Amino acid sequence: MDRIINFKKKPSIVSTYTVCGPKESQGNLANYIDQKIYDDYDKQPSFELAERKMLTCAIDRAVKKSKVFKNDIGAYVGGDLLNQIISSSFTAREFVFPFLGVYNACATMVESMIVGGILVDGGYIDNVVCATCSHFSTAERQYRFPVEQGTTRPAQSQWTVTGAGANVISNKQGGIRLISAVIGRVVDYGVVDANNMGAAMAPAAADTLYDFFVCNGKKEKEYDLIITGDLGALGSRILKDLLLKKGIDISFNHVDCGELIYNIDEEEYQGGSGAGCSAIVFNSYIYKKMIKGEYKRILLVTTGALLSTTSTQQGESIPGIAHLIEIVAE
Amino acid sequence: MDRIINFKKKPSIVSTYTVCGPKESQGNLANYIDQKIYDDYDKQPSFELAERKMLTCAIDRAVKKSKVFKNDIGAYVGGDLLNQIISSSFTAREFVFPFLGVYNACATMVESMIVGGILVDGGYIDNVVCATCSHFSTAERQYRFPVEQGTTRPAQSQWTVTGAGANVISNKQGGIRLISAVIGRVVDYGVVDANNMGAAMAPAAADTLYDFFVCNGKKEKEYDLIITGDLGALGSRILKDLLLKKGIDISFNHVDCGELIYNIDEEEYQGGSGAGCSAIVFNSYIYKKMIKGEYKRILLVTTGALLSTTSTQQGESIPGIAHLIEIVAE
Repeated sequence: MDRIINFKKKPSIVSTYTVCGPKESQGNLANYIDQKIYDDYDKQPSFELAERKMLTCAIDRAVKKSKVFKNDIGAYVGGDLLNQIISSSFTAREFVFPFLGVYNACATMVESMIVGGILVDGGYIDNVVCATCSHFSTAERQYRFPVEQGTTRPAQSQWTVTGAGANVISNKQGGIRLISAVIGRVVDYGVVDANNMGAAMAPAAADTLYDFFVCNGKKEKEYDLIITGDLGALGSRILKDLLLKKGIDISFNHVDCGELIYNIDEEEYQGGSGAGCSAIVFNSYIYKKMIKGEYKRILLVTTGALLSTTSTQQGESIPGIAHLIEIVAE
Repeated sequence: MDRIINFKKKPSIVSTYTVCGPKESQGNLANYIDQKIYDDYDKQPSFELAERKMLTCAIDRAVKKSKVFKNDIGAYVGGDLLNQIISSSFTAREFVFPFLGVYNACATMVESMIVGGILVDGGYIDNVVCATCSHFSTAERQYRFPVEQGTTRPAQSQWTVTGAGANVISNKQGGIRLISAVIGRVVDYGVVDANNMGAAMAPAAADTLYDFFVCNGKKEKEYDLIITGDLGALGSRILKDLLLKKGIDISFNHVDCGELIYNIDEEEYQGGSGAGCSAIVFNSYIYKKMIKGEYKRILLVTTGALLSTTSTQQGESIPGIAHLIEIVAE
C-alpha cells in the first residue's frame, strides 16, 4: 500500500511560537525559543495551569505573528499528554477556534500538522493553528511519581520537556511548505519498561521512515535533516541500526529533538521527551534555520509511546507510533 | 466566519458494524445492533480488555462488510474515553492500518468521521475506517467510583453505554454520503456537576447547530432527523430551548442517541452517554434506516464533555464541544 499523503497545493507554515520552562531555558536551543518561564508554576496555583498558560501563550502569539485575524483561523488541531488532553481542551475554550482534539502521545505535533495540513491543502479551511505541549511536573505525577517524592531515575530514562509550541498553516504560497506526509502505524516490539520509551518508539520510526523512502523513491541523502521527536540517545541508536539493516543510512543527517534540547548531563540521561519536545525544537530552532535558508529539505518524524498507567499496571507492553511530515523551504 | 466544511466528492459510508453490552442488548435498538456481549467481561480478564475486544470486533467486521481489502484501508481514525485512548491505540496495534488517534470525549465519533471524511474527499486516501467505543465499567472506575462500591446515582446522571461502532468511509459513489460538516468550538456555560453532562454539552450543540443553519442557509425542516449524541433527556430539553430562543425549532425532528438506546427506567435516569452511545446508535439503527430509505437527510451532532478527574478536582467547570456531520441517502 502506498502510504504517502501528497499535499497538492503545498500549504505554508506562516508562523511559529514557542514557550519553554526553566531547564530548557538553559539548554542548547535557548536562544531560538521565543519565550521562557523561570519557574515550573509560572505564578499559577498548579502545574496544570502553568502548562495551559504556556500553550495558550504559544497559540496566541503564533496567530498574532501569522497576521491572520483570529476569526479567520478555521481550526485549532492539537493535543497533549494529560488525561483527556485537558491542557488543549481548556486552552481551546479561551479561543473562538473550532477544535479538533488529537492524541498520539509525543507524536502529536506532526499528527496535528498532518490533519491541519490536509484541512488547508484540501481547500476546506484557509488557516489552521497546530499546537501541543508538555510539562515535566504534570507528566511526572500523572505517569510516574509525584516530583516531591524524590524518586531516583534509571539510566535509560528521559526528561519530559516543559514547553509548548504552535504554528499556523495557511494556504498562502511560498516560504516553509508541507510537501508530503506518512501517517504512522502502531508498532510494538514488546518493550515493557516505561522508563525506556526510546526503545519502544524506535521501531515505529523505522517503519514509517522505511515506507516513506520505499513508497516514493526518495533517498535519505536528499534531506538536510531527518529529525525524530524524542527517541533520546539510546532510541536514536536503535533507529539507525534498524534502518541500516534495511539499507537506509541516516547516520550523517539524523538528529533527535530529545538529544538536541538539553546539554545532556546526568539528570536528563537520554535527553528530552514529551509532546512539547518536538513542538519546541521544530517550531523554534528548525523553523528559524529553514527561514534563514540553512536547511532546505527536512523530514520531521515525531514519535509516541501509546501507553497509560492502566495499560502498564495490567502488564501490557508499550506500542509506539511515528508520524512523518516532509517540509521544504522555498 | 463560515464554519461549513463541504465535502466536494461526497464520500460514502460503505459499511458499519456495532457491538453492544448486556444492558444495551435489552434496549430499544437491540434488533439493529449487529453483535451482543452478555457479560461486561466477555471472557476477558479485565473490563478494559473487554472494551478493546468490542472495538477490535467492530472494526474488523466493518472492514469485512465493506469488501475493501485490509491493505487498502489507508487510515484508522478513532479514540475513546480511557486515559491516553488506550482502547483505540491497542486496537490499532492489531491492524496494519495507519492510525490517527483523536479525542473529543463523546463527540469522538463525528470528529473521526470529519477527519476520515476529508482524508477520503481530498483524494489523500481511498478508504478510512472510523471507530469509537465506551464501556460502563471502565468509565465508572476511571471517572467516578468503582462499580463494586455501589455508589448511588443522582437523578440527572446518565449511563455510559457499553459498546463499539465502526464504519468505513470510501471514495465510492452513491449510497449513504457525507455532504458537509461543522467542527465544534469549545463552549463552557460554567456547569460544574460531573453528573450533569447533558447540561454542560447542550450549549455547544446549540452553537454548532446555529452556525450550521446560519452559514449555509439550510432550514431545520429539511432534515428527517437531527440527532444529538448523548445529551440525555434533560440536555435535549436545554438544547431545544436554546435554539428556539434563536428562532430554530427542532422539536419535531430532534432525537438523542442517549434517549433512544435504553428503555429508560430509573437506573439510567437521563439515558445513555459515552463515546459508544452515538457510535452504536448511528452505525446500527440510523444507518440501517437510511439504507432502507426511511431517512434521507440527517444531521448527526455528537457532543463531548471535555473534563478530566484532575480538572474537576481542581475546581474547573465542564467545557462542551459538538461536531456536526450532514449525511444524505441517495
